[in-house]
Amino acid sequence: MEDLAGYKGRALRVLSRAGASIGDVLESRTEWGTVEGTLVPRYEGGDDRHVVLKLKSGYNVGLSLATLKSVAVKAKGEKPAFLPPRQPRPRSGLQRVLVIGTGGTIASRVDYRTGAVGPAISAADLNSLIPELSDVARIEPEILLNILSENMEPSHWSSLSRRVGRGVREGYSGVVVTHGTDTLGYTAAALSFALRGVPIPVVLVGAQRSSDRPSSDATQNLIAGVSVAASAPFSGVYVAMHLCESDDSIAIHRGTRVRKNHTSRRDAFVSVDVPLAAVWRKGRLESVADGLPKRGEGVGFTPKARFDGRAALLKFHPSMDGSLIRAAQKGGVRALVIEGTGLGHVSAKVTSAVCAFVKAGGVAFMTSQCGRGMVDLNVYDTGRQLAKAGVTPLKDMLAETALVKAMWALGNTKNTREAAALMAQNIAGEMTPRRFPR
Amino acid sequence: MEDLAGYKGRALRVLSRAGASIGDVLESRTEWGTVEGTLVPRYEGGDDRHVVLKLKSGYNVGLSLATLKSVAVKAKGEKPAFLPPRQPRPRSGLQRVLVIGTGGTIASRVDYRTGAVGPAISAADLNSLIPELSDVARIEPEILLNILSENMEPSHWSSLSRRVGRGVREGYSGVVVTHGTDTLGYTAAALSFALRGVPIPVVLVGAQRSSDRPSSDATQNLIAGVSVAASAPFSGVYVAMHLCESDDSIAIHRGTRVRKNHTSRRDAFVSVDVPLAAVWRKGRLESVADGLPKRGEGVGFTPKARFDGRAALLKFHPSMDGSLIRAAQKGGVRALVIEGTGLGHVSAKVTSAVCAFVKAGGVAFMTSQCGRGMVDLNVYDTGRQLAKAGVTPLKDMLAETALVKAMWALGNTKNTREAAALMAQNIAGEMTPRRFPR
Repeated sequence: MEDLAGYKGRALRVLSRAGASIGDVLESRTEWGTVEGTLVPRYEGGDDRHVVLKLKSGYNVGLSLATLKSVAVKAKGEKPAFLPPRQPRPRSGLQRVLVIGTGGTIASRVDYRTGAVGPAISAADLNSLIPELSDVARIEPEILLNILSENMEPSHWSSLSRRVGRGVREGYSGVVVTHGTDTLGYTAAALSFALRGVPIPVVLVGAQRSSDRPSSDATQNLIAGVSVAASAPFSGVYVAMHLCESDDSIAIHRGTRVRKNHTSRRDAFVSVDVPLAAVWRKGRLESVADGLPKRGEGVGFTPKARFDGRAALLKFHPSMDGSLIRAAQKGGVRALVIEGTGLGHVSAKVTSAVCAFVKAGGVAFMTSQCGRGMVDLNVYDTGRQLAKAGVTPLKDMLAETALVKAMWALGNTKNTREAAALMAQNIAGEMTPRRFPR
Repeated sequence: MEDLAGYKGRALRVLSRAGASIGDVLESRTEWGTVEGTLVPRYEGGDDRHVVLKLKSGYNVGLSLATLKSVAVKAKGEKPAFLPPRQPRPRSGLQRVLVIGTGGTIASRVDYRTGAVGPAISAADLNSLIPELSDVARIEPEILLNILSENMEPSHWSSLSRRVGRGVREGYSGVVVTHGTDTLGYTAAALSFALRGVPIPVVLVGAQRSSDRPSSDATQNLIAGVSVAASAPFSGVYVAMHLCESDDSIAIHRGTRVRKNHTSRRDAFVSVDVPLAAVWRKGRLESVADGLPKRGEGVGFTPKARFDGRAALLKFHPSMDGSLIRAAQKGGVRALVIEGTGLGHVSAKVTSAVCAFVKAGGVAFMTSQCGRGMVDLNVYDTGRQLAKAGVTPLKDMLAETALVKAMWALGNTKNTREAAALMAQNIAGEMTPRRFPR
């Protein structure tokens, strides 16, 4: 009899009818093309509306029955061997680390993106997937959210910040947040502001390849993240991702300075124009940067978890006119983060629209689409006009970080004037102070 | 008597009254702060409403009399020495190169951004500034535009493309376009599409530091650009800018793959995920890439210089909803280039708005805000929904290049459907073909 572990209902019937088993190579015709891949098992909690194939590239693809036209077995496969789940074996003396799941590739097993399926993140699951974890810390996993990271909203940042705040009170040595990589940088920035002064390490961990792929980075990133959370000498918000293509070295990035710089590489994440906070190499921390807050500092810490989503990010480009800015204003946007060209410039047309936006009570901030280097509104007339109109230049702050900070500043001040003042201060390492004029 | 070369009218009177001479260190109080710097001369064509100071950093700042409150001499300077203008001495046997000025730092002398001042770009000027040029080619300079590059519009790309087209017919061996660095990448992409099949090299050259600064990159970039235009074995559209901080090596970037990646460094420009076209080192070309079109190919070439500006670039971000997309549509935008997260994702809310935009007759294209790597709408359900709605994924095309190409595609097709088909083809090296599924 065929092995169709985890499939049920309609999906089971379709596969059964085709005579398919786990491990077989299937050819599936869908509305959007034909896909060939190996049938992989589904885990507990999966729905009955998807069939999951592993492509040659190693990617898993979840095929919806709604768009599936036919399935045929192209080659019979060998029955895959599965690890028996291993129970956690907490060792005495290990630090307690809270592992918060939010969705995404990292803490899932197979069909991590088919919609209805929850990540496999019980302690038993995690310890069976990554036996090394139980040597590093006593992990206590918890699923807070289960969403695609592109659907992450400011309200999710608030929940997450509050949960970490409770985690501090509950006496955890550190917190790991597993997160989809798409908006990992935005969330890292959000936590950096909301958890300013947190006395323990909070480490966001993602994976570019799922844990069932031979090239997965999930395991190493998670081990490094848990290890840093458990025993790093510093506190604050960080991101743990591959430093290079090798599995040996995991970069520990500062939460306000990190950006996903490649769509698919395992070392996609980079620290922009600042040194890494540290490197985790073969089980230990190396090259720890100077000046990081020490673990345990910040007694009496309370999260400032409010975010006001009425902020927008606009990237200036040729042919842009003022209509997008006027539309944003009409749509209720109170803070505008602009990605200007070069040192922070926009065209004359856009300058007028920004001036009008500020006159009407909005606040506007300038970053650069160059991604690296300082903006400076004092070098050229264009810039000085913007500065005179009240546009605040944000030095070397990343545009994404600036957007998140604007939402946080709006959420934690009484009016836009106060929010603008807060934006110009360095709160969580997000900008490098610099003398004027340079 | 004081030397106030180039100053006239009100500016002359203000400086005269203060007893200032060229080379003196002045302290100037303005509405936006106090500035200390060395008074530099102004050149022919300057207005009488600005005083130009060189800051310690080497930047020149043009102070408008309208905002200037007071000027005082802080220290008397030495009288600077100036080179006498040198006449060009055309040598026989040299190639003719057309040098088209559009504004920006590169071909200007001192007060390049005070608004009313034209760049100094007569052949005499250029040869006196850069004597080496007359050994490299017979340059024939011409000012086509004199605008800040952030004000560059699709109509300017058209004029520029047509001028280069005439230059080909006029028998030039190559064309150099001097351009402000802020939107240099956008213009390079525009020329790459409009001048597809051009039989000579067309080289865009910018400068991050003006030619009167000791650290200026103007001279070396221009020499390299003219040299490539005169005698490179390849044709097509390129950008010549510093490869590293050293003056020795100039990177020759492909016009569709280049991005300004730093606000101020001389080596700000990078080729994204493709090899450089070549490196110009100490007077000669090295490491010329395979597969570049050969000089002389493309007989019967005609520019396709039409651009339709009704395209917009939107960078997806948390809290973005559909209102910006609806506003763009209402404002007449026909093509939307989206910078999604990761492999090309947006939130469910934005997906709906994009679907509606396409349904109403618009075309939408997906690029990634990661900046590097391929987008792929086949890996996840989110992406497949977008693809099903008619969103075209643009592989590894830069978002800025995609925007420019969309304007070009709209300008050279009969309807949006044809434009979308043109977008999916590789026209000028802007995307790397790749099999599906990967």
